[in-house]
Amino acid sequence: MKVLIVHAHPEPKSFSSAMKDAAKATLELAGHEVTVSDLYAMNFKAVADADDFGTRRDPDYLNYALEQRANHEAGELALDIAGEIEKVLACDLLILNAPVFWFSVPAIMKGWIDRVFVSGAFYGGRRFYDRGGLTGKSALLTMTLGGREHMFGDDAVHGDLETMLRPLLRGTLHYVGMTVLKPFFAYHVPYISADERAAIMGDFCAYLGNIENAPVLSFPSLDDFDDNMHPKNPGH
Amino acid sequence: MKVLIVHAHPEPKSFSSAMKDAAKATLELAGHEVTVSDLYAMNFKAVADADDFGTRRDPDYLNYALEQRANHEAGELALDIAGEIEKVLACDLLILNAPVFWFSVPAIMKGWIDRVFVSGAFYGGRRFYDRGGLTGKSALLTMTLGGREHMFGDDAVHGDLETMLRPLLRGTLHYVGMTVLKPFFAYHVPYISADERAAIMGDFCAYLGNIENAPVLSFPSLDDFDDNMHPKNPGH
Repeated sequence: MKVLIVHAHPEPKSFSSAMKDAAKATLELAGHEVTVSDLYAMNFKAVADADDFGTRRDPDYLNYALEQRANHEAGELALDIAGEIEKVLACDLLILNAPVFWFSVPAIMKGWIDRVFVSGAFYGGRRFYDRGGLTGKSALLTMTLGGREHMFGDDAVHGDLETMLRPLLRGTLHYVGMTVLKPFFAYHVPYISADERAAIMGDFCAYLGNIENAPVLSFPSLDDFDDNMHPKNPGH
Repeated sequence: MKVLIVHAHPEPKSFSSAMKDAAKATLELAGHEVTVSDLYAMNFKAVADADDFGTRRDPDYLNYALEQRANHEAGELALDIAGEIEKVLACDLLILNAPVFWFSVPAIMKGWIDRVFVSGAFYGGRRFYDRGGLTGKSALLTMTLGGREHMFGDDAVHGDLETMLRPLLRGTLHYVGMTVLKPFFAYHVPYISADERAAIMGDFCAYLGNIENAPVLSFPSLDDFDDNMHPKNPGH
């Protein structure tokens, strides 16, 4: 299958950057075709603004989502955005690989999402979640973090990590219709030994080598809501 | 008290931008001293990278948090970051005002957090949550969104909105020790009438005019965890 790895770490020698390289190598060995968008290396523009549009639908008032939709349809989006959209539309699996910054992705990757996940092609109106524009594709979040694994969970100091990352897993990747695979986390990375890092990398490559059988996160279906998005069976 | 409003919307005529202006006017009328950081107007740099540091602790390997801490202590941070840190340290109440982009803040505001919430002064080691560096200050998130209010809640299509925004409310604002006030949401803003907008603005100004009595979100205390961040009373 075709895989797009979007990577964002400011240090090319970081463990996160090594995960990006290992993912590419492992997936290619398994016969997949891999494209990488290394956002720091690309100096990717993070800020969604009026410069993203070749032709303004409304030059006097910037509604970013409406201009996205109109400019995408007219082929008038900024070239860096159009190129990334093409990569996403061509892929079967999207991997977002980054360090956890403030329980989310670094701003440069948030900006990639803000600018590339276009209204219209990716979502719109009642086309979201399991009716989103990218149904049929899969998505995987792979992140490094400083915290230790026991600091996450229902009783743990930070609560559940997948809940903390819900805006990305459910609110972004699933929002546009993608099947969201169980994320891979490399814990406590700045503080562990080379042997411990190697063990994590082994687990990571094993997970990717068998990615077709990865567990899938489950989310509510729009089938359970009426056209006004009221639940059909409240309380059930 | 001293209030810092950090605002991020690409359209100065937007409802979000009007909320920023109304907040400033209302809080000044109530006798508070208000500073505004309008990130789009400032063309604020969103991307955390090596250019943020005057002197590198380790020129061969960029650990952003370690460089933040060392450069802040040495007075060697980029001037735009140092200026924002000074504003945050001087304020009693921090207001983050922005539209919801992908169940989070726009990338330019995420970048403000990544770059300004410095390791050392704001948090570090076991100094986080109710032992964070900014205890004694309050924080308020005020956001506009396209969704309707009934689309959020335990049974609703997007789930609970405060849970979706947990990385900001708990994982960022509370992480550094701030008391987090109940957020204010302006729903369905692009689709409602001028009268409906005026009613929301009235509620917003009333909320700010009585901000000393705003409800406070509650989060776990580090007192319930041992020095290794294991819960003292698991399951309770």
